[in-house]
Amino acid sequence: MTDPADLVARVDEGELRLHELEDHADYDTAAEARRLLLERETETDLEAIGDYTFPAEAAEPNIENMIGAAQVPMGVVGPVPVNGEATSPTSQHSPSAANDGGAADGEYYLPLATTEGALLASVNRGLGVIRTAGGADARVTKNGMTRAPVFRVSGVAEAAETVEWVNDNVETLAEAAESTTSHGELLDVEPYVVGDSVYLRFAYDTKDAMGMNMATIATGEACEIVEAETPASLVALSGNLCSDKKPAAINAVEGRGRSVTADVVIPGELVEDRLHTTAEAIAEANTRKNLTGSAKAGSLGFNAHAANVVAAAFLATGQDEAQVVEAANTITTMDARQREDGTTDLYASVSLASLEVGTVGGGTKLPTQAEALEVLGLKGGGDPPGSNADALAEIIAVGALAGELSLLAALASRHLASAHEDLGR
Amino acid sequence: MTDPADLVARVDEGELRLHELEDHADYDTAAEARRLLLERETETDLEAIGDYTFPAEAAEPNIENMIGAAQVPMGVVGPVPVNGEATSPTSQHSPSAANDGGAADGEYYLPLATTEGALLASVNRGLGVIRTAGGADARVTKNGMTRAPVFRVSGVAEAAETVEWVNDNVETLAEAAESTTSHGELLDVEPYVVGDSVYLRFAYDTKDAMGMNMATIATGEACEIVEAETPASLVALSGNLCSDKKPAAINAVEGRGRSVTADVVIPGELVEDRLHTTAEAIAEANTRKNLTGSAKAGSLGFNAHAANVVAAAFLATGQDEAQVVEAANTITTMDARQREDGTTDLYASVSLASLEVGTVGGGTKLPTQAEALEVLGLKGGGDPPGSNADALAEIIAVGALAGELSLLAALASRHLASAHEDLGR
Amino acid sequence: MTDPADLVARVDEGELRLHELEDHADYDTAAEARRLLLERETETDLEAIGDYTFPAEAAEPNIENMIGAAQVPMGVVGPVPVNGEATSPTSQHSPSAANDGGAADGEYYLPLATTEGALLASVNRGLGVIRTAGGADARVTKNGMTRAPVFRVSGVAEAAETVEWVNDNVETLAEAAESTTSHGELLDVEPYVVGDSVYLRFAYDTKDAMGMNMATIATGEACEIVEAETPASLVALSGNLCSDKKPAAINAVEGRGRSVTADVVIPGELVEDRLHTTAEAIAEANTRKNLTGSAKAGSLGFNAHAANVVAAAFLATGQDEAQVVEAANTITTMDARQREDGTTDLYASVSLASLEVGTVGGGTKLPTQAEALEVLGLKGGGDPPGSNADALAEIIAVGALAGELSLLAALASRHLASAHEDLGR
Amino acid sequence: MTDPADLVARVDEGELRLHELEDHADYDTAAEARRLLLERETETDLEAIGDYTFPAEAAEPNIENMIGAAQVPMGVVGPVPVNGEATSPTSQHSPSAANDGGAADGEYYLPLATTEGALLASVNRGLGVIRTAGGADARVTKNGMTRAPVFRVSGVAEAAETVEWVNDNVETLAEAAESTTSHGELLDVEPYVVGDSVYLRFAYDTKDAMGMNMATIATGEACEIVEAETPASLVALSGNLCSDKKPAAINAVEGRGRSVTADVVIPGELVEDRLHTTAEAIAEANTRKNLTGSAKAGSLGFNAHAANVVAAAFLATGQDEAQVVEAANTITTMDARQREDGTTDLYASVSLASLEVGTVGGGTKLPTQAEALEVLGLKGGGDPPGSNADALAEIIAVGALAGELSLLAALASRHLASAHEDLGR
Repeated sequence: MTDPADLVARVDEGELRLHELEDHADYDTAAEARRLLLERETETDLEAIGDYTFPAEAAEPNIENMIGAAQVPMGVVGPVPVNGEATSPTSQHSPSAANDGGAADGEYYLPLATTEGALLASVNRGLGVIRTAGGADARVTKNGMTRAPVFRVSGVAEAAETVEWVNDNVETLAEAAESTTSHGELLDVEPYVVGDSVYLRFAYDTKDAMGMNMATIATGEACEIVEAETPASLVALSGNLCSDKKPAAINAVEGRGRSVTADVVIPGELVEDRLHTTAEAIAEANTRKNLTGSAKAGSLGFNAHAANVVAAAFLATGQDEAQVVEAANTITTMDARQREDGTTDLYASVSLASLEVGTVGGGTKLPTQAEALEVLGLKGGGDPPGSNADALAEIIAVGALAGELSLLAALASRHLASAHEDLGR
Repeated sequence: MTDPADLVARVDEGELRLHELEDHADYDTAAEARRLLLERETETDLEAIGDYTFPAEAAEPNIENMIGAAQVPMGVVGPVPVNGEATSPTSQHSPSAANDGGAADGEYYLPLATTEGALLASVNRGLGVIRTAGGADARVTKNGMTRAPVFRVSGVAEAAETVEWVNDNVETLAEAAESTTSHGELLDVEPYVVGDSVYLRFAYDTKDAMGMNMATIATGEACEIVEAETPASLVALSGNLCSDKKPAAINAVEGRGRSVTADVVIPGELVEDRLHTTAEAIAEANTRKNLTGSAKAGSLGFNAHAANVVAAAFLATGQDEAQVVEAANTITTMDARQREDGTTDLYASVSLASLEVGTVGGGTKLPTQAEALEVLGLKGGGDPPGSNADALAEIIAVGALAGELSLLAALASRHLASAHEDLGR
Repeated sequence: MTDPADLVARVDEGELRLHELEDHADYDTAAEARRLLLERETETDLEAIGDYTFPAEAAEPNIENMIGAAQVPMGVVGPVPVNGEATSPTSQHSPSAANDGGAADGEYYLPLATTEGALLASVNRGLGVIRTAGGADARVTKNGMTRAPVFRVSGVAEAAETVEWVNDNVETLAEAAESTTSHGELLDVEPYVVGDSVYLRFAYDTKDAMGMNMATIATGEACEIVEAETPASLVALSGNLCSDKKPAAINAVEGRGRSVTADVVIPGELVEDRLHTTAEAIAEANTRKNLTGSAKAGSLGFNAHAANVVAAAFLATGQDEAQVVEAANTITTMDARQREDGTTDLYASVSLASLEVGTVGGGTKLPTQAEALEVLGLKGGGDPPGSNADALAEIIAVGALAGELSLLAALASRHLASAHEDLGR
Repeated sequence: MTDPADLVARVDEGELRLHELEDHADYDTAAEARRLLLERETETDLEAIGDYTFPAEAAEPNIENMIGAAQVPMGVVGPVPVNGEATSPTSQHSPSAANDGGAADGEYYLPLATTEGALLASVNRGLGVIRTAGGADARVTKNGMTRAPVFRVSGVAEAAETVEWVNDNVETLAEAAESTTSHGELLDVEPYVVGDSVYLRFAYDTKDAMGMNMATIATGEACEIVEAETPASLVALSGNLCSDKKPAAINAVEGRGRSVTADVVIPGELVEDRLHTTAEAIAEANTRKNLTGSAKAGSLGFNAHAANVVAAAFLATGQDEAQVVEAANTITTMDARQREDGTTDLYASVSLASLEVGTVGGGTKLPTQAEALEVLGLKGGGDPPGSNADALAEIIAVGALAGELSLLAALASRHLASAHEDLGR
């Protein structure tokens, strides 16, 4: 076994570079050597960072220049009650369209990793109310991971020619794209023209994988056909109409990853007993804050703090933290619904347009993240394929719903400031 | 010391609730008891999650219902070369306006925690080029943490009355707001009217704290004055014009937290030798992808992947991961600059409009996160106050610049797909 | 008097160019000659276009290459009832902040020019209901015409230097800007930085003029100071942060021209008797369509058809039709308000963020447009200056409110399609 | 023939209402009576408004409560040179995808009605340069008029059921929709879910009609099937995802009406000789203003003043002025293109995402507007159907391109302010 001090010496002598240590030692030793160097250079003590408890090799696909790990507190909320049963096939409305139901059905514990004090307490308060109300409904209504390369053409005439070829040859592109993947399916290719740039937005069903890389590789293959058959020349495999890790309307409108909606009806008595306010007051706060306030702010996010739940669930379950940017795109609605007996219930919903999640690949294999997925019963590929990622999306949506419900109720009750003071965040 | 099995038994008997365990045991025991319960309920083994190495009490302000920690691989990039020296006071242009310079000045190691393979390698490649080019400039050009309560009025006439009162009484509001904080200063109150809703956007200098809670508490105090002196009645302490954790144009336009810009000029030879492309090719890729592509996508993010660096730096240094939503709001520009000798250099910049960062409070006290801030030399309050958070913003901006540079160069060279394949992400 | 046939001959001989005819003949003859040429070239008969009834010289500041006029049908709606009285100085809330009231106060006839069948009928139906309800309140809550030049700097350091100089020297800039105008006042200069571009958004009080040209000329003068005193070099007098004739969030958030709000409370009985629906049904339609529908569409316009009224009023009164793009930026709210006796009234409001209007200059001097302003009693400069343009903004807002009210009621009653069929549009 | 004074008397006596006059007199007399009343009430003289020269009956489908007409100066620009020939079928790239070419091909005179002084001069300057450069290419790359009703469902489960039914039954919906129209074809139905609201965006090929009413009526018919076959209940025939007369990203991204692009390559010598600047300077101004400036402004419009040309062409040709809001959605690109001999040419393009135009119906039948369409050679239905509206879109796009080119060149040359001063606007 290599001595980390040796590695440090070889770096000092200019013989090795910081990122090459793994070529000369096992991963843990390489990380230790880097810590030694860094501690010396920055006069620090990296004991905590070095005190990670997974084998460094496990993180090899996820990081370079590893020095250790960030430890982020993880808690649990739940149970998260999700009603996923199919609507009755004897529905008077559309016997033929009997809904398949949601992928999630039952009660789930949802691990959340965060440093945002009061968040889990808030979500749990909301979940308690949802449970008493009989649970929330949740459905993935759209699914497609996208990648949109940008091509250069000489001008408008070639752009029109390229668009026409693409529209006529989607099958050919699908064949090429799907040749690179055992799971992925090309769902659609949508062309967009801006002057002498042509963007093709490829959308894939990537099953239980979040699927960015699958989509990138498959699209790369399809691009070769486009270049061979049309005058278009590839400029960049991603032309930002994907749109990955940017707050873009195209995702909010058309979706990316899973488009998922969750809702619940809270009986009026419950609103009063447990949330200490009324359906009308919550609806008013939601309209003034989440709808008109967001409208006036020029926002793509019409919610209170869905990003908190999305970010914490992403961190706990090994999703891509940078995708929180668009994954948190949420419209929250809260309405007072009059019952026939005059009582007023609260209808609450969240609609997340572009929640990119996976239960295989990426950070999901890391030990703590894998355990979090096991707590959910969703580790690895689902049966049928895609159902685990669908279920994860639905459960996160219900978690976000609980968070919205709780915060809106708190705001309506003017409790926000004091809640923060009490809980010390 | 309490036996965790006892706690489990008391929960089973309905005597205790899951979130009350800390009232009956030390924090580590409470977390252990929760794991035991969860392992039993979900038939899992939470060894890795339980294998955290900080004292659970340390996480008390950050989480409830703790079961352990997520361990996220942390690596390091750098040195990050930042030129912060003030512009010369003998500048011919504006002797009186001699710029104070940036808060960051020198070379920094930036810890990044992520599961996104290839990210650190990419950022490091960009940083290497920036170092050879003499380092990047970075400046915080605006600073203000915002909170925007929404009030109900009877209608337009009262709204106009309220706006007028607020505009005439900013000093009174400042006094009230600042009475709640030893550090914060109220910078501005901006009123917005939508029908019978009045929104007041309070902006604060919160020094080295990210400052959301300081701003919330101070604003709560000011709201009491508004309610006493005007017909307006508070509906919610946050009316979404803040706008926290939502991708809102108001932040992209007016800023929130730090507005920070970083740039560098890369000599043409360096672009060719190290990035294997040309300034023109990178500029073209940037224009087609980050500018026109984002324009066509209806995006607030005109960059390639700034969110990756922001998210990873936030995770490593204990920032609020959910704020990545707006903190990643970045416009990247890349232009070819002709030198007099005919050579073409590359000018590259990133402008982050709303980067909310702090070096005190929140998650910054957790052991691994505190160490990461120490690596940067920025733990705790700065001298003068605010300078540590300013410097952190500037360094993250240079990290993002390096990431943009590297990815744009890779895209221009059509390397994206193969890079992903090679690095296994 | 020149014979138009002579002009045609001289154009045919290449002696004159089409736009030079006014140098060789009176304006009407020049227009006639152009029609003759055009009729011959395009084998058409331009009798109607040539049958305009104003002296062509009157249009000289408004058009080049004139051939005649478009005649657009003009109708009238009203009376438009606007309550502008100041709120009582004995208000218990804020004696010191007694509101000045609105600029419009009384009943106005509003001319509208349009080809959109059913529009005036719809607005009139809304106005009738508003009149019976006692009239609408309307207030301009913000006023500022903006122009935002873009400057080139070498990079971030110079950008920061420029921003600092500007922030320190607003008075100097005001002096320069105001030296070019007898009426305009510089209200504010707001700097924005994107890499090596610095944008300065100048806002002016331009009184009764819409003010774009006043703002452009004044800003041009101020730019010379900026160039002399800072390293910044002017690239374009408009850098699109103004933002003129583009649907930009900066206008929707911060306003441009007049920010104006109008509202009304319609008693429940009136809603039923005259609109044949209920406050709740209208509120529901507004929330699902104008709030959540617009949210999902990624829209800056949260209204039903405010643009119809704005465009028709602009056309009738000589405003700039291209500014309808941002002038129509409207958030419409409709809420059911419970009275103490259990009845439910409808609260309806429109908030137009960036309505650019003037009663002097531009197209307001043309004969038909001037008459339309006279019908409103608002032709020319107001007393005090600015009050005529304020009043025009308030009346248009009430017109838009009436249109929203009527269409929302119609939609709620499912009458839209049949109304169109009946009225043949 | 009725005496207008009689009508006035009957209105005074409360026997008739202002909008009922057409039931008791011919249209011109009714208009005259209204003017008399209005002149008396507002102490004005409406001679100019009353001096319209078309028969009032002609305007009956376009206006109610008619009092006369607004006369807006109309000029002409051109010839507008449009290259619409198909790309060569012997293209090496894609013999099978030989492009059909554009609908417009040749030289056109474009009438523009406006009060914006200097506009036609500016567009003509641009057109002159484009002509010398050999003309512009223009293509409609997408076409679809949309209408998006919003439905109420009980919640997420019913929403999913409804979406599934719609996706499975597009043919049935097409049959219903198309039963109401002899020309229109349903192209697509796209469902969107937000909580308990389901939006269905219907897109139609409406040939030479702008098509809003056709789309509205057809969609109304399809909605009855949706209500019969699914649990969804119609709330409003337009749910703002259409999105009509609002600046919505859904239109900018997915298009509405015609998506049309026009471009031209201007040889470097021409740029210098005629525009007195360089390709590089224009490209720089475009990037800083139209791309990064608009990006920073949170804009959906990445252009200089496309709205000016669109609004003026709409007014001249009888289009819907309120649709300028979205019709002006334009991305302008300007790039320096290096020739092999080292010369630098300018590539300039405009891409209008949602240009709603028609050559039949609406305001196109009014006398002056019909003549303007005749000048273009595009009055009435095209052969094949839709080709006239396509051609109109392409010609307007080239007009907008000329305006962009001219203004960008002027800005680059710092001529804007002085041009305004000279031309007196």
